[in-house]
Amino acid sequence: MTQLIRARSGEITPEMQQVALQEKLEAEKIKDLLAKGLVVIPANKNHQNLNPIGIGRGLRTKVNANLGTSPTFPDWENEIEKLKVSLACKVDAVMDLSTGGEIQTCRQKIIAHSPVPVGTVPIYEAAVKARETHGAVVEMDPDDLFAVIASQAKQGVDFVTVHCGVTQRIVEKLKNKPRVLGIVSRGGSMMAGWILHNQKENPLYEQFDRLLEICLSYDVTLSLGDGLRPGCLDDATDDAQIEELMVLGELVERSRAAGVQVMVEGPGHVPFDQIAANVVLQKRLCHDAPFYVLGPLVTDIAAGYDHIAAAIGGTAAAVAGADFLCYVTPAEHLGLPTIDDVREGIMASRVAAHAADIVKGSPYIKEKDSAMAVARRDLDWNEQMNLALNPQKAREIRRDLNPVEQEVCSMCGEFCAIEMVNKYLGELDN
Amino acid sequence: MTQLIRARSGEITPEMQQVALQEKLEAEKIKDLLAKGLVVIPANKNHQNLNPIGIGRGLRTKVNANLGTSPTFPDWENEIEKLKVSLACKVDAVMDLSTGGEIQTCRQKIIAHSPVPVGTVPIYEAAVKARETHGAVVEMDPDDLFAVIASQAKQGVDFVTVHCGVTQRIVEKLKNKPRVLGIVSRGGSMMAGWILHNQKENPLYEQFDRLLEICLSYDVTLSLGDGLRPGCLDDATDDAQIEELMVLGELVERSRAAGVQVMVEGPGHVPFDQIAANVVLQKRLCHDAPFYVLGPLVTDIAAGYDHIAAAIGGTAAAVAGADFLCYVTPAEHLGLPTIDDVREGIMASRVAAHAADIVKGSPYIKEKDSAMAVARRDLDWNEQMNLALNPQKAREIRRDLNPVEQEVCSMCGEFCAIEMVNKYLGELDN
Repeated sequence: MTQLIRARSGEITPEMQQVALQEKLEAEKIKDLLAKGLVVIPANKNHQNLNPIGIGRGLRTKVNANLGTSPTFPDWENEIEKLKVSLACKVDAVMDLSTGGEIQTCRQKIIAHSPVPVGTVPIYEAAVKARETHGAVVEMDPDDLFAVIASQAKQGVDFVTVHCGVTQRIVEKLKNKPRVLGIVSRGGSMMAGWILHNQKENPLYEQFDRLLEICLSYDVTLSLGDGLRPGCLDDATDDAQIEELMVLGELVERSRAAGVQVMVEGPGHVPFDQIAANVVLQKRLCHDAPFYVLGPLVTDIAAGYDHIAAAIGGTAAAVAGADFLCYVTPAEHLGLPTIDDVREGIMASRVAAHAADIVKGSPYIKEKDSAMAVARRDLDWNEQMNLALNPQKAREIRRDLNPVEQEVCSMCGEFCAIEMVNKYLGELDN
Repeated sequence: MTQLIRARSGEITPEMQQVALQEKLEAEKIKDLLAKGLVVIPANKNHQNLNPIGIGRGLRTKVNANLGTSPTFPDWENEIEKLKVSLACKVDAVMDLSTGGEIQTCRQKIIAHSPVPVGTVPIYEAAVKARETHGAVVEMDPDDLFAVIASQAKQGVDFVTVHCGVTQRIVEKLKNKPRVLGIVSRGGSMMAGWILHNQKENPLYEQFDRLLEICLSYDVTLSLGDGLRPGCLDDATDDAQIEELMVLGELVERSRAAGVQVMVEGPGHVPFDQIAANVVLQKRLCHDAPFYVLGPLVTDIAAGYDHIAAAIGGTAAAVAGADFLCYVTPAEHLGLPTIDDVREGIMASRVAAHAADIVKGSPYIKEKDSAMAVARRDLDWNEQMNLALNPQKAREIRRDLNPVEQEVCSMCGEFCAIEMVNKYLGELDN
């Protein structure tokens, strides 16, 4: 019994109540949004101590951080440290994308330590196993892939990215009409390689019902991956991307019909002026399923600053209706992020999500901004620090930049505009 | 003879030629844009070794970094270090906002070491002098203010921010109908305090022709300051801001009529969905004068991450037509920026400017992005680093994150999507 099925039957679950409290909405409203598939609550029944969140229309824009080992950095302990930092930065969800070392242990530890929903891309574990067992990812046995998905579901994974839309037809088209940067989705590239090597249909597409059965058993939310997402501006919003999106739209309907919660992933690298169109198109073709975007990155040349390129694109996407932002760190395109990169990536995405929610969200979203304005007028520094998105960082910077204790700050000192205004304009302000 | 007057007379100056080369446009076109006032080339005839740039319609979006001492940090040597870092980060212009220590020396050194245009806010020096001479900023003698402007013009300052639009009428209105955060512009607050204390009209407004005469003598470009810019989202796009903008529109016409180059400054703190409207309004009310924005910041609570909030707003503003972005650093609202803050602030603004130029600029703007996509497909790391907005930073991160020398990166390692795609899809790509 998934949250979706229970919502449809009219039940208000504890998870829906918790989401309603967080979002300052009626539980009844959450139930209705869930029943229509406009909101998902990724909450695997085996994820102990989960604080459920809702993702989708009318709710606060959520932020995900990708964690996980790689062949170069296989230590799961480091990823647990990243998880702790992510939680301290108030991340809404994390994904464990491990491909190095003891990946099952890493996932188990992350699920055990994470009160936020945990997602995975199961084909990564299947790929690691295929390399070990058969010598190559493309030799992967589809049954092994489904076995991995089932075992991860049983372990308590709340949502899985599955590249079901990378169909044989699309891959063949792509082969005959290449893009600049073919496929940059790791899971998408594995699936495309498998399809071309085996000359068979994508098993995640062909046996989609088998996937739905697993999700039904544990209430795993499907996150339909965009294997064909553009990896550069020149490939953005092209026919490969849109054809996959149409396939995903069909799979959204099949998921909902089966009672499985579903969201859809989106680009990627997209010029600023194409972002809103991408969101409108996704919402239309995918029947208003929650939209989970990776960036979008508004330039290809911001290596080292891709968290900023993603914050720009993420704001525009969320304002247009995207519901869930996958963070991008300063290490994007360069290597596996460090703990500091994780922190910077989350904070950049949180700025983006909040900036968008100010525009699209409930009025309560802006309360802190309004309070900050008053704290600034009153030169109440302690309150300003408390209200900052990351109070600790704000306090550190203020401490470092203000060696002298004074009411004003070290930028303007005795020439503080606020002080001047409070003196000459201020009588009527308070 | 200003660039504006010379353009109107049909002359193509060396400065116009240089701008044309930079922008890959015909010099004739630059001359026409200048003649109409749609483009300015801030180039004081006393600024030796200046590499002139153009700001305005059809040109690349430019980025300014604010430098300068404060009472807490009065050492000008440190500001020269910031200038060097700014130039290394490819800043397009700098402003010297010094208010502490030897401010004339600081300005002289900055002008001498800066091949990019240098701007100032002359009222700061006048305020420092007024405190020294008369004990208070509001006791400033208008003649002293004009003397400061004239001396700075003679020193070689290329553009000056002057808060001419903070009129007695607007300040009185503001007093009777307060905002949350009255005035946050330092120069604007000084002028408002002066007006209320002396019960006289703003001398920069009342004696605007005197200002124009000084600008004419040295070809100083006026940057009409937005003293009433909103300091918080709740004050954005209000009547005080718009009334000032209308005054600035009149002054644009008077400046142009006098042959003085002019641009207009804009907000500030603005919700994402009001940004485009602000740009459209400025362009309309100010007769398409180049628009120089401070941010805009899309949230009030990003202290420590305000460079990101400004990059988001700056992109939206530039896409809508803003021409010149004033950087915001991570130290904004907390203190005077460090050298690292200056670097981060410039790079964030450069990401924003470039993301916008991809959308609004000439096709050549995107050449590096297109080349980056090819370098990524080819796993050509050296070329990727060369093409990055900040090659040094990208190289440092790659070095730190990739202890093992390999063709792929430490994020995906042997599960690299590009490698997979090049193997199975790649035959036709190259």
